[in-house]
Amino acid sequence: MSGPLERPSTTAAPIFQGDPRALARAISLVEDETPDGAKLIARIYPHTGRALLIGVTGSPGSGKSTLVDRLTAEIRRAGLTVGIVAVDPSSPFTGGAILGDRVRMHAHSGDPGVFIRSMATRGHLGGLARATADVALVLDANGRDVVIIETVGVGQDEVDIVGTADISLVVLVPGAGDDVQAIKAGIMEIADIFVVNKADREGADRVVQAVAANLSLQTFAAGEWRPPIVKTDATTGAGVETLWAEVTRFRAHAPDRRRARRRARDERRLRDLVAHRLEQHVAATLPAGVWDALVDRVNRRESDPYTAAEEVVRAVLPPAASAPSPAAGASPRTGRPAGESR
Amino acid sequence: MSGPLERPSTTAAPIFQGDPRALARAISLVEDETPDGAKLIARIYPHTGRALLIGVTGSPGSGKSTLVDRLTAEIRRAGLTVGIVAVDPSSPFTGGAILGDRVRMHAHSGDPGVFIRSMATRGHLGGLARATADVALVLDANGRDVVIIETVGVGQDEVDIVGTADISLVVLVPGAGDDVQAIKAGIMEIADIFVVNKADREGADRVVQAVAANLSLQTFAAGEWRPPIVKTDATTGAGVETLWAEVTRFRAHAPDRRRARRRARDERRLRDLVAHRLEQHVAATLPAGVWDALVDRVNRRESDPYTAAEEVVRAVLPPAASAPSPAAGASPRTGRPAGESR
Repeated sequence: MSGPLERPSTTAAPIFQGDPRALARAISLVEDETPDGAKLIARIYPHTGRALLIGVTGSPGSGKSTLVDRLTAEIRRAGLTVGIVAVDPSSPFTGGAILGDRVRMHAHSGDPGVFIRSMATRGHLGGLARATADVALVLDANGRDVVIIETVGVGQDEVDIVGTADISLVVLVPGAGDDVQAIKAGIMEIADIFVVNKADREGADRVVQAVAANLSLQTFAAGEWRPPIVKTDATTGAGVETLWAEVTRFRAHAPDRRRARRRARDERRLRDLVAHRLEQHVAATLPAGVWDALVDRVNRRESDPYTAAEEVVRAVLPPAASAPSPAAGASPRTGRPAGESR
Repeated sequence: MSGPLERPSTTAAPIFQGDPRALARAISLVEDETPDGAKLIARIYPHTGRALLIGVTGSPGSGKSTLVDRLTAEIRRAGLTVGIVAVDPSSPFTGGAILGDRVRMHAHSGDPGVFIRSMATRGHLGGLARATADVALVLDANGRDVVIIETVGVGQDEVDIVGTADISLVVLVPGAGDDVQAIKAGIMEIADIFVVNKADREGADRVVQAVAANLSLQTFAAGEWRPPIVKTDATTGAGVETLWAEVTRFRAHAPDRRRARRRARDERRLRDLVAHRLEQHVAATLPAGVWDALVDRVNRRESDPYTAAEEVVRAVLPPAASAPSPAAGASPRTGRPAGESR
């Protein structure tokens, strides 16, 4: 682990260094998806692209948080600074994110080289994935060498969030049907490194074998990265050094693949933001009452969702642009072409 | 459980009755999101709205599939027909959906009153949620009295999919940290009935108590539905009769709330389809090469995602419509208003 990671073309200095409160304010700005947050991202973007983004996911109870704490200590020992974004879906009943912050603060309190931010699920998760990516950008621009994005759970959202990282760690534990879970949730595909945590527990070897068996069904081209399986015990720290070594080995491996991944990430991000802006356009363009009236008609079975969607699209796009598409052109219930029904 | 469920205004006869192969073909049509699938939905939509949609979710290994089989038997005993949509995220390595189908086929084979369709995760999950809703509509139009949508996992996607149902069952099991899982994943909010399966296991009462403790923190208005907690043992069938009784009790309870829920579902569906159509519009409208060039510029840090998204929106919307919005109007890197940079 020597030398800086990829530096973008800019030589601009990192932002908010030595001012954790300014950093926290900047994060709040982008986390809340404010217009100023979008401007901030545009301004700091040239400062980003240097940090190594590590995504960590796994089922609840897999000991991810403890593992991330241990990994952070290991990264600090290597002389690198760390930013952690803990995506912690919490219900209003538990305030999970707050509790999580408190526990974490304790472990690395007083170390300015570690900055931790917990994010709770608010509103739709598409927004959370957007906000997570932006918070990671702020920490990147802040000069953090490593940014860890930790998510709870192994659903598609977690896959999406972790998919924004340069390297994805999937944490499994013995018992809890995790061998099944890993296979079912499509987790096999996103893991760059498998971590079998709580490796002292009975059944740890079975999990290792299940993952290895699945990996053996895949074909890897010559020189292609084959995800290693690392056994850890986060409570004692056993195996965490090996885990960090595998992360650095991955980073050194196949820079082409990392570049391709970053481009794919940039494309997903752009697609998501365009969709978000078009949604705003619909809300701003559609005359008052039209949306509710359409929903009511669908609800009363006087229209159907596809036909109603086509009406919305016609109303918000220029005439030429909203010509009937092959997908939803004619109105099957009336037989009229979509363009004639208004 | 007497009398028909809500009948839509139409008196049209159910489609594809007595022809399981035509039904299967229709499902494939909507499952693949073909243009003909959209037309089919528009055509059958007046026939829908009668079936009771039951959403079932829970963590892997909670015994959901067995529970759904038992519940299906119970519903059949009540003289009602059943359609099951099993959303079974499977990796290419396991073919989980196929295995699932085989196991299920066995349990209800030869009963025309039970139609089972497993759906694997393919592509983006937004597409899966869309397809699941459409498959449920086809089964509804087919005259199924009850349509069960079963998902594996407790992530946001599962919440979204199950959110299309009239009633949501959340299945928990002792051990596996499910008390934590239920709380963390925001599952408390979507459950109409909690099912503690494998209730003979040690710790079942702790799960019941954890859920009850969380429910006790919520305030329920007079007459508001308070989610019951039902203990089951799906392998023996214990408790399943009670579960079905609770489902029918929910159905009889607060029809206003069910109507409000169905309207919210219709609105989500419309919003999703509009977003999907606008995405198609972008793909069809943007000149060849522009998209890739923008992604490349973001990737090289010559632009940022917000500014690039604004450029796409300007290119696909009419000039007046794409006037700078407060959210992403000015180009912060150049200081020029967005409208002047082209």
